[in-house]
Amino acid sequence: MTRTVYVNGDYLPETEAKVSIFDRGFLMADAVYEVTSVIGGKIIDFAGHSVRLQRSMSELEMVSPVTMDELLAIHRELITKNDLDEGGIYLQITRGAPGDRDFAWPDPEEVPCGIVLFTFNKPLVDSKVMDEGIKVISIADERWGRRDIKTTQLLYPSFAKMQAKKKGCADAWLVEDGLVTEGTANNAYIVKDGTIITRQLGNDILHGITRAAILRFAVEAQMKVEERPFTIEEAQQADEAFVTSATGFAQPVIEIDGATIGTGVPGDISKRLREIYTEEMIKTAI
Amino acid sequence: MTRTVYVNGDYLPETEAKVSIFDRGFLMADAVYEVTSVIGGKIIDFAGHSVRLQRSMSELEMVSPVTMDELLAIHRELITKNDLDEGGIYLQITRGAPGDRDFAWPDPEEVPCGIVLFTFNKPLVDSKVMDEGIKVISIADERWGRRDIKTTQLLYPSFAKMQAKKKGCADAWLVEDGLVTEGTANNAYIVKDGTIITRQLGNDILHGITRAAILRFAVEAQMKVEERPFTIEEAQQADEAFVTSATGFAQPVIEIDGATIGTGVPGDISKRLREIYTEEMIKTAI
Repeated sequence: MTRTVYVNGDYLPETEAKVSIFDRGFLMADAVYEVTSVIGGKIIDFAGHSVRLQRSMSELEMVSPVTMDELLAIHRELITKNDLDEGGIYLQITRGAPGDRDFAWPDPEEVPCGIVLFTFNKPLVDSKVMDEGIKVISIADERWGRRDIKTTQLLYPSFAKMQAKKKGCADAWLVEDGLVTEGTANNAYIVKDGTIITRQLGNDILHGITRAAILRFAVEAQMKVEERPFTIEEAQQADEAFVTSATGFAQPVIEIDGATIGTGVPGDISKRLREIYTEEMIKTAI
Repeated sequence: MTRTVYVNGDYLPETEAKVSIFDRGFLMADAVYEVTSVIGGKIIDFAGHSVRLQRSMSELEMVSPVTMDELLAIHRELITKNDLDEGGIYLQITRGAPGDRDFAWPDPEEVPCGIVLFTFNKPLVDSKVMDEGIKVISIADERWGRRDIKTTQLLYPSFAKMQAKKKGCADAWLVEDGLVTEGTANNAYIVKDGTIITRQLGNDILHGITRAAILRFAVEAQMKVEERPFTIEEAQQADEAFVTSATGFAQPVIEIDGATIGTGVPGDISKRLREIYTEEMIKTAI
């Protein structure tokens, strides 16, 4: 089945889904995005993603081309048109396509923002990763300073992912000033003596929507949470490690730079958090 | 006249020039670029730009979709088709358009890199800026760590340019650890007691093709050159300041954060360097 995608107001077959070469998303990475999960044809935490999207646009003075209600309707229409059961929806808003290239932003009245959405299939609930856990490497965090804004400047995370693959690992944890910031497309956690430790929010990490939910559920389940940075060495000596993301939920990490974490199998707290998260998300999906 | 642009092997009217929404340049800023100047229908320093382009691709393990001879031929064809006399040619190479979005790079055998070029008209030799000079602000340098690779991750320079505009200035000088790195799309220089001072090459600045030529001409003209970083305070107390770029050549800076530089008019060394550069470039254009 040819996928139907959404591009600037039109539902199109994916093969015809194109944007102008003058789109600022293409020329200057002047674009923000969100990825929302879908289970059983229903959207997970749309509210969280739409609030973050609006914050990203606001930080960059972008004017949304759609209301959040319209955006939800587009998500639903794409799910229907593509008969999407489990997977996700990628959404990108760019600062539009003026007729030429200029570092200065165009007047939003004259050049409206562009918008693109597409669906993808992916098994989310039953994931092999959960049984085995992933291995990660550490690598210097060379990204720009405003990682709290979810922009398409993803070349470095992409580069880091490739370095991990070359070493037989699934992902990389980024390290700045000796401390872990996050994974290439997820937030990073360790567990020591029953306490869940993850870096506090700031400009240096993405404000994960899944992170917020996981920490809320952890507290509700009487688990202890400490929001502070940690080193790779501390992580290697932790009892458990895991990452969270919209399409990965909570994924256990069993090896960091070749050092086995805990007993080398997914830890109980990671597994429990994943269970709670999956259950709650399915319950509240819209 | 509708411009003719080049997209992945085809010469097209600009209105039909589009790329897939799955192009990694659009989704992930996984793309590099060059801008080359044209005077009298001839290309300025193509050799310099093609060497840097190849270095950018090499650092990111991209396989060029064209040879440098083919690239030169496309440049010339675009000049002819668009009757371009004075201006420039923008060139972007992306890591292609796989059918989906993935942080991991696709196999270059299966997904070839994409390529886009377009021309633009711009007065280069007779520029009003040279008579008046530009005003700049300073702003924190929040870009990623590999500015020596000329990627399309230009959101921050674009943001900085807008902050400058809001303060009635033409550009911003980026400051990291108290020292100027460069302008938003140019290298930065000051002149004190006859010595030209500009930051040394490294990962923290673009290796300007115009910078290399300007410094070579300065040395040939018996001017003293010091490659070292400087602060905004030192710049404000300099005799002259200027920036260099492919389409700006050497442009005098007459005010930094509200402080007048020298006598507030373009300095003699800046003007002399621009003259030499323009003369030499016209002579060696191909």
